[in-house]
Amino acid sequence: MIFAAILAGGSGSRMGNIEKPKQFLTLGSKPILIHTIEKFSIVNSFEKIIVLTPKNFLSHTKDLIKKYIEDSDNIVVIEGGNLRNDTIMNAIDYINDNFQIDDDSIIVSHDSVRPFVTYRIIEENIEFCKEYGACDTVIPATDTIVESNKDNKISAIPLRDNLYQGQTPQTFKINKLAKLYKNINDDDKNKLTDACKIFVLNNEDVYLVNGDVTNIKITYPYDLKVADAILKDQV
Amino acid sequence: MIFAAILAGGSGSRMGNIEKPKQFLTLGSKPILIHTIEKFSIVNSFEKIIVLTPKNFLSHTKDLIKKYIEDSDNIVVIEGGNLRNDTIMNAIDYINDNFQIDDDSIIVSHDSVRPFVTYRIIEENIEFCKEYGACDTVIPATDTIVESNKDNKISAIPLRDNLYQGQTPQTFKINKLAKLYKNINDDDKNKLTDACKIFVLNNEDVYLVNGDVTNIKITYPYDLKVADAILKDQV
Repeated sequence: MIFAAILAGGSGSRMGNIEKPKQFLTLGSKPILIHTIEKFSIVNSFEKIIVLTPKNFLSHTKDLIKKYIEDSDNIVVIEGGNLRNDTIMNAIDYINDNFQIDDDSIIVSHDSVRPFVTYRIIEENIEFCKEYGACDTVIPATDTIVESNKDNKISAIPLRDNLYQGQTPQTFKINKLAKLYKNINDDDKNKLTDACKIFVLNNEDVYLVNGDVTNIKITYPYDLKVADAILKDQV
Repeated sequence: MIFAAILAGGSGSRMGNIEKPKQFLTLGSKPILIHTIEKFSIVNSFEKIIVLTPKNFLSHTKDLIKKYIEDSDNIVVIEGGNLRNDTIMNAIDYINDNFQIDDDSIIVSHDSVRPFVTYRIIEENIEFCKEYGACDTVIPATDTIVESNKDNKISAIPLRDNLYQGQTPQTFKINKLAKLYKNINDDDKNKLTDACKIFVLNNEDVYLVNGDVTNIKITYPYDLKVADAILKDQV
């Protein structure tokens, strides 16, 4: 069984003083979140597409899905957690409560604010995860990456050839992810901004799937302008 | 004395099958390179703005500057090198051949394909370099950065809080840069994709200047669409 988890838990503090979290902002003719859900809707593999939002946006999200998505039978909206990994664990709890999964069952987790994910990327995530147990979507780093630990000075410039910019989806065998997450202490849990790091900290392999430069994350107001340009180019 | 080096040496192989290097592509009403030169032209500090291009584009570049830049007396076009640092060293050779510099003389090096650099960023580069000897323009990394050494697997996910995406300008005391570059063996020289790394490899401090998300590098066709969106937003 394969599940999708659309992570729409963020409150969008980096977007400046706006009323709505960024996943609910309009891009073209509909909310960003709807664009994202649509990309998963056209993939037939999913037992359930689980959308995770802040508590006070649950009914709004359900209304939007009813309004924009024609066939929404396999979509469910539940509450997300405070941190990214809490949100993923909420999805896993929901799956365990409602389905009989086994060790080959897979969760494809994806940022709700990456509306330009492609069918090819989602399919490759599923394939790679089936084969390897975990995978991450990345593109080669185009910028030089600079490390600075303190004092506003450069401490290192790692070799760019080995560096990638992480995107999503990030895809995992569900039971393995849940088991590895339990191995991590609370301190480390709070520092985890990334689900793949659960595997890396446990010395487990995570394979790389080729993402796409257009698979951007809409974080800042500037990104919304870029997103509009990408959208116009696709229509 | 303060000099600018606009690095237009690249042949733009990542842009796909196009006739012209990317710095000569049109953005809005004029070539990208001209936008970039204009940003430096309005800063009064420069003794000379040195534009470095491939040999076969020298006269074309001179023609463009004549056509688009009203007051071009302090602009000179010379040949760049094969690698980024060769190009910077060509600029330094030119400076030494034509000016009497001292240990406080500064070179502000900048990618010709970053046309949205701001007056504020250039001024802060000059200030920080005067104070510290070298500085680099960066923004906090927004994407998770993933390291992979082999086998298409993740080898590490460094803590994002310490990571920055490098932009340009990169600004240096000229004599110090030239001296440190001589300390590096040829093997390491060929691996240097970044001028700041000359300082880092010599355990010399490089200070960070805040860049801007719009200070993008136009590398891929996709970036040109983003650039158009930024330009429209600024007009």
